[in-house]
Amino acid sequence: MNVAAPIPTTGRAARLYLRQGHYRGTTAAMAPGYVQGNLVILPRDFALEFLQFCQRNPKPCPVLGVSEPGDPRLPKLGQDLDIRTDLPLYRVWRNGRIAAEVSDILDLWQADLVSFVLGCSFSFDHALMAEGIRLRYIEEGTPAPAFATNIPTTPAGRFHGPLVVSMRPLKPADAIRATQISSRFPGAHGAPIHLGLPQLIGIKDLDRPEFGCPVEVKEDEIPVFWACGATPQAVVATSALPFCITHGAATMLITDLRLSDLAIF
Amino acid sequence: MNVAAPIPTTGRAARLYLRQGHYRGTTAAMAPGYVQGNLVILPRDFALEFLQFCQRNPKPCPVLGVSEPGDPRLPKLGQDLDIRTDLPLYRVWRNGRIAAEVSDILDLWQADLVSFVLGCSFSFDHALMAEGIRLRYIEEGTPAPAFATNIPTTPAGRFHGPLVVSMRPLKPADAIRATQISSRFPGAHGAPIHLGLPQLIGIKDLDRPEFGCPVEVKEDEIPVFWACGATPQAVVATSALPFCITHGAATMLITDLRLSDLAIF
Repeated sequence: MNVAAPIPTTGRAARLYLRQGHYRGTTAAMAPGYVQGNLVILPRDFALEFLQFCQRNPKPCPVLGVSEPGDPRLPKLGQDLDIRTDLPLYRVWRNGRIAAEVSDILDLWQADLVSFVLGCSFSFDHALMAEGIRLRYIEEGTPAPAFATNIPTTPAGRFHGPLVVSMRPLKPADAIRATQISSRFPGAHGAPIHLGLPQLIGIKDLDRPEFGCPVEVKEDEIPVFWACGATPQAVVATSALPFCITHGAATMLITDLRLSDLAIF
Repeated sequence: MNVAAPIPTTGRAARLYLRQGHYRGTTAAMAPGYVQGNLVILPRDFALEFLQFCQRNPKPCPVLGVSEPGDPRLPKLGQDLDIRTDLPLYRVWRNGRIAAEVSDILDLWQADLVSFVLGCSFSFDHALMAEGIRLRYIEEGTPAPAFATNIPTTPAGRFHGPLVVSMRPLKPADAIRATQISSRFPGAHGAPIHLGLPQLIGIKDLDRPEFGCPVEVKEDEIPVFWACGATPQAVVATSALPFCITHGAATMLITDLRLSDLAIF
């Protein structure tokens, strides 16, 4: 822990800070205005099928960048970015289960690994907060709650599984404004996919998320659901993939892209 | 009644048809793609205050056109438009109450009357239906239910009163899509102002609208509320205005403007 360290304000400063390996917490409030990304690293044998999966499921899996096999760099996403060290925490998956959580993957790197960076709701969260919309999960310093739904993703090859959604409780007027704001950012999951009636998408208990931590929905609020970048993790589990590396809970890649680079209007 | 008549498909054809005075019903499904408008006609003495009222309350009162005093034409809204004859039904208000409903206002016309045409949700309803969103009130052939809320408008001079909202029951995913679509049309009330929790805006019973007819909200739907062009009628009533003419229930002015003319993106 390095509590006294200043919060990095640019994508590159955040990566250089995280590369030191001291901080393993959430990147939620880091480098406001810079695009953050979910990470999925797969052997080349799975890469085409996974890219097809992303193309068929653009709301949970908006592709921001794909590396060359074996190359830990993604220069279009960040100057001197090293995908093996620049996230606070990584999950190593074996046969569809979490086998380890580690602060770097230098020892696990292989010449056939391909890195996929997918858009993340932290990006539009910054846009929501900039418009004065308060997000309880951020104020409470916990990862947003996310739920597996009864909505299947469109399969591709060996990849199949449920759509995962993140939930933010919002006052109705803020839910409308948040829909408008997040619509501008299809590269960060875009508009919500559901609101108001969680049981319709197979969510029985808002207090028991599969990912992240529960957050209260007050009487004057409705739950608003966005497609979530944890979907590939549910898919890796459901598909019992032999090997995969992802980001940890709420520990994202921070890029050099600005949020405005993702805005479609 | 002229049941066998073809439904006019352009704004001008609709006006010429309605000018004949045989049809007094809703304009909801007429001339799809053409902008429809709410009508408020006031003596010149009230015109400036009303225009200030509209400027301060743009969601219920988006101004599409204002006539010269005494001139029944609004050439920018329609070729050879005559505001005295081209709506199916008019309401004549005296001292804040409906004194009569008439099919033209030729006998009531005065040299000091100013006509205000305000955007109408029928315009974005066409856009919603074009995207495959079904609207029960249109399928049932009744005027959309509208409710006075506990949200006050911003007063101007002698004009004050509650915000009125129209309600459409929608499946959650359609509510999100409808928010996106209607956001493109601030000239037709724009995005919803509320959804999901009617009691928070002072609506106690969805089965008892102040305007229009009730419509069922099914178990897999949420009520979605848009600012409504009936707001000026509630304001005319609350303000006990000595004299005013408006459109009748769901009987709008149909203009030559295309919906795309109102789209901001």
